[in-house]
Amino acid sequence: MTTLSTTGLIEALNWRYAVKQFDPSRKISAADWTTLEDAMVLSPSSYGMQPWKFFVVDDAALRARLRPHSWNQSQITDASHLVVFGLPEKIDESSVDRFIARIAEVRGVETSSIEFYRQMILKDVIHGPRSAWVREWAARQIYIALGNLMTSAAVLGIDTCPLEGLDPREYDAILELPARGYNTVVACAVGYRSAEDKYASLPKVRFPKCDMLEHL
Amino acid sequence: MTTLSTTGLIEALNWRYAVKQFDPSRKISAADWTTLEDAMVLSPSSYGMQPWKFFVVDDAALRARLRPHSWNQSQITDASHLVVFGLPEKIDESSVDRFIARIAEVRGVETSSIEFYRQMILKDVIHGPRSAWVREWAARQIYIALGNLMTSAAVLGIDTCPLEGLDPREYDAILELPARGYNTVVACAVGYRSAEDKYASLPKVRFPKCDMLEHL
Repeated sequence: MTTLSTTGLIEALNWRYAVKQFDPSRKISAADWTTLEDAMVLSPSSYGMQPWKFFVVDDAALRARLRPHSWNQSQITDASHLVVFGLPEKIDESSVDRFIARIAEVRGVETSSIEFYRQMILKDVIHGPRSAWVREWAARQIYIALGNLMTSAAVLGIDTCPLEGLDPREYDAILELPARGYNTVVACAVGYRSAEDKYASLPKVRFPKCDMLEHL
Repeated sequence: MTTLSTTGLIEALNWRYAVKQFDPSRKISAADWTTLEDAMVLSPSSYGMQPWKFFVVDDAALRARLRPHSWNQSQITDASHLVVFGLPEKIDESSVDRFIARIAEVRGVETSSIEFYRQMILKDVIHGPRSAWVREWAARQIYIALGNLMTSAAVLGIDTCPLEGLDPREYDAILELPARGYNTVVACAVGYRSAEDKYASLPKVRFPKCDMLEHL
């Protein structure tokens, strides 16, 4: 397997920053974008359940309508691509059954042979300790996908800006997500930084490593 | 900047899986581990606030004590490294002040020049809409760091296993995290897969891309 060097990784993560100003003239190539879509689909999640859907907003008019509901941030309309992360409105026994059926299909096994796994998930996420906050559990998984997208883009040399500062209800309404069974959680603009973005050259702010990480 | 090729990235993400059985004899080199620590510290977060602390459990006796509180999963004791992600017990005005002071220090500016940024964070996270669920907001940020760690490790050819199946209160007690001002959220084992791990060769299960991603 081709791997990245340790210096390459750190270089990419230091290069990454939350882009304030994208270059509206630079589009991500089709091949690179397909790669990032595939990377999102490959995101890890608890039990492998993938409690999400990725909405890629291509339509310029839709993006213009989203912008005022995102503190008017220019990234919404200027970035090459905009991904809105959707959380399933319902996470219930049928979600688990659908997942179990997919495992059986991909791995060519009978669902009966993975009934123990089905029960394990049901007893935890649907009827057990996590059921009281299952949507929040799902939102956390979505943030794994968000983290994966930002790091994946960075190692390809592609810029991102995560966007929490948006009105999820307005996003839902404009993108008609509830009719699709989803709700907006967070978004991420993807593209290339503008040469004018003064934030690109500011020193990255992190607390000292000795305060952030401790060996026990 | 050295980047990874698109095929290299997809290869790494397909190679990654939640390792069930680590090779207990294979340790991550000091240089690679330092890189992963630095990658964690470089994780993105909302406002750049870094509402987390990474606890690396080196002590074998501590790891043995954690294992029964993690469904007795062997990854806890067998993986080269174990990271426990800690959420700050208190996220309040002083957390924001500490962050603002750090920005001023790193960028060599007066805190007065970034007072608008301080107010923006306070009005959102501490006194505003997110204040009602600030700890959950912080937990989501931690999942960005978790996603970043898993993808960073994968592109270096290093294995991981995220661990949600643990008893946070027992972890807190064993690692004495509350005395340090933190609570356990999630953990991640990092190391190298065992040649015996039959899960490594199972086809990865993902829903079809057409169901997981939609263009609008």
